[in-house]
Amino acid sequence: MIGEATRWEVLPGGVTAPEGFQAAGVGAQIRKKGRRDLALVYSRVPAAAAALYTQNQVKAAPVLVSKENLAGGAAQAIVVNSGIANACTGPGGIADARRMASFTGEVLGIPPGLVVVASTGVIGVPLPMEKIEKGIREAAASLSRAGGSAAAEAIMTTDTCPKEYAVKFRLGEKEATLGGIAKGSGMIHPNLATMLSFITTDAAVAPEALAGALRWAGARSFNAVTIDGDTSTNDMVVLLANGLAGNKPLTGEEPDYFLFREALLAVCRELAKMIARDGEGATKFLEVRVKGAEREEEACLIARSVAGSNLVKAAVFGEDPNWGRIVAAAGYAGVPFNPDRVDIFIGGLQVAAQGRSLDFDEEEARAILEAREVVITLDLNQGAAEGLAWGCDLSYDYVRINAYYRT
Amino acid sequence: MIGEATRWEVLPGGVTAPEGFQAAGVGAQIRKKGRRDLALVYSRVPAAAAALYTQNQVKAAPVLVSKENLAGGAAQAIVVNSGIANACTGPGGIADARRMASFTGEVLGIPPGLVVVASTGVIGVPLPMEKIEKGIREAAASLSRAGGSAAAEAIMTTDTCPKEYAVKFRLGEKEATLGGIAKGSGMIHPNLATMLSFITTDAAVAPEALAGALRWAGARSFNAVTIDGDTSTNDMVVLLANGLAGNKPLTGEEPDYFLFREALLAVCRELAKMIARDGEGATKFLEVRVKGAEREEEACLIARSVAGSNLVKAAVFGEDPNWGRIVAAAGYAGVPFNPDRVDIFIGGLQVAAQGRSLDFDEEEARAILEAREVVITLDLNQGAAEGLAWGCDLSYDYVRINAYYRT
Repeated sequence: MIGEATRWEVLPGGVTAPEGFQAAGVGAQIRKKGRRDLALVYSRVPAAAAALYTQNQVKAAPVLVSKENLAGGAAQAIVVNSGIANACTGPGGIADARRMASFTGEVLGIPPGLVVVASTGVIGVPLPMEKIEKGIREAAASLSRAGGSAAAEAIMTTDTCPKEYAVKFRLGEKEATLGGIAKGSGMIHPNLATMLSFITTDAAVAPEALAGALRWAGARSFNAVTIDGDTSTNDMVVLLANGLAGNKPLTGEEPDYFLFREALLAVCRELAKMIARDGEGATKFLEVRVKGAEREEEACLIARSVAGSNLVKAAVFGEDPNWGRIVAAAGYAGVPFNPDRVDIFIGGLQVAAQGRSLDFDEEEARAILEAREVVITLDLNQGAAEGLAWGCDLSYDYVRINAYYRT
Repeated sequence: MIGEATRWEVLPGGVTAPEGFQAAGVGAQIRKKGRRDLALVYSRVPAAAAALYTQNQVKAAPVLVSKENLAGGAAQAIVVNSGIANACTGPGGIADARRMASFTGEVLGIPPGLVVVASTGVIGVPLPMEKIEKGIREAAASLSRAGGSAAAEAIMTTDTCPKEYAVKFRLGEKEATLGGIAKGSGMIHPNLATMLSFITTDAAVAPEALAGALRWAGARSFNAVTIDGDTSTNDMVVLLANGLAGNKPLTGEEPDYFLFREALLAVCRELAKMIARDGEGATKFLEVRVKGAEREEEACLIARSVAGSNLVKAAVFGEDPNWGRIVAAAGYAGVPFNPDRVDIFIGGLQVAAQGRSLDFDEEEARAILEAREVVITLDLNQGAAEGLAWGCDLSYDYVRINAYYRT
């Protein structure tokens, strides 16, 4: 990551950091009183738009409606509620999601087809449309450049903190900004599980190039996060590019496109790591690095298998340098590799070489595992490809939260 | 299951119930003092043999050695230690596993190639071969028809109780018996994760037919169990058929072969369910039934996805009828289905119809979930195939056991 500082600069704020974006987060009483639960993001002009959707066979109504609305590659507003997922709600749910889009369009004076809809929360319960409409009206009235953090708060479910991040960077003669908000917590696994992220930029990017950049960055960030292996019905990552930075529109070939893509990856990675750090009940952030693989996808699969293993996660919670569980989890990733060549490191301490135990200092390993952030590295020693995954430990609180709270 | 009682009869005991088998379980001090940790199973005559092995890329030395020894389709003894897995132990580990087989052969006066070797326990630690040899000598000296339960005890790790089961049934003019022992607990998932089972029969079955029967029964029993999604390096199911019942050897075509296969399935299912009931920290046994699928494999995949979901398991622990998590877990099984046709039942209570919530009685659902055994049924309403999976809830104790005990 050396050198990044010279290519972009981290800004405060998130989704309203880029030029021409406003946001709001209000309490529509969909969930607890006094808690913000409805967010609105709005661009002064229509923007090029791209999205990633949950891979779950069961897709919530807002996912289906947003897919329709984004088919044209453009959007101008995003409306999101937390508390109720509007999933498994049948044709009525689809009508409600469409109504959220059309009502937002009416209030903002833009075509309903330019509105993206997202929901997160309990499955199988219909939306309280009167409260939602009241909330949309209130949010539209309070849209502002300062409203990004309120929007970040309003999309939270069991998250313990709002998540936002922004960077600015040069595109030729112009200065461009990228900013985003995200929510996560439980039910997070590759392919966007109960994960919502909304990213904005004032860079001018052609819709196809924008979609390519988001696919590329998403695969290397949001899809590397695993909290509990559960993939939700509602996940979405949406990226709007309104072009107000005034750069020559990026088409996907020029050097500046690749710089944009890298900056987008930086934003996606920071948001993804915030999600992993805030996993339900998490006491530790876990990064698994796999090196020496033959192919990048294989390295990523192994990294996710290790980061997603309940036994590895419980060992990290217990600060137990149990590398046997690490190698066993690597072994069931579905990727062929030679176990007799694998080196394993906990932090900087090598604990296994060539698939066998080293006589390492258990106390030193435990001390490394006491930290809030733990890095586990596997070197397969059979190629040059690398992959990463992020997760968290498995704690008593994960069980408590998911046993006794309806999410 | 109606009618089974007329086809076979449940017997006490396990692996020594069939004619000609003896067993022993001794304390070789591989783990705690006074705890049985070495088991021996012996057939008076060489037996046809078949086995299923872990699908993990990382296979422990005893798995590799047993595969070699069973290549000929025959075996006469099984030696098993708990406490140390002899996995990730390099060439020295292979030599130790071979030595376990050859030493057992010497002591019993049979060819070393007729000895199956299995280990379970901590990964990455070499076997204490002096203790193992002393244990083998002691076990061989104490082999008896009454030793089956001691063997079932000796293969336990974090299991809370020994697991054995036996049935007798008629094969033509003769009476045949099938019996088995098993261990499970954590790290259990489809494809035989930290699961060992040794099954014996006095039926005469040709090796190829025996292998076919075990694959068929294993896919419908051991592979339907999921405790935590982790697949171990050491799993094995071994079946010995010594022919002492005197029936005409089964070749895989005759009606009696199918009866044998059904009886084998009954034994495997009971052992598999005992493993699920005794999952680490489990307070409840969970059976997931999927009906109305297009194909049996797809029904099984969905059933396992639901039974293996941390969120479903935590909801069962918390006795929360959260059917949204059930449908979401079905949705990420990787199997296409129409979510708008799915009916969901908790016990006998329908909670969702056509993919949508029913206005069911939450108190009634909670009362059903208070039981020690919970059945969740999904009807996909798109075909006639069915599948099952067994698992358990996710409790505080799972986390405690796996955070603070080295397994």
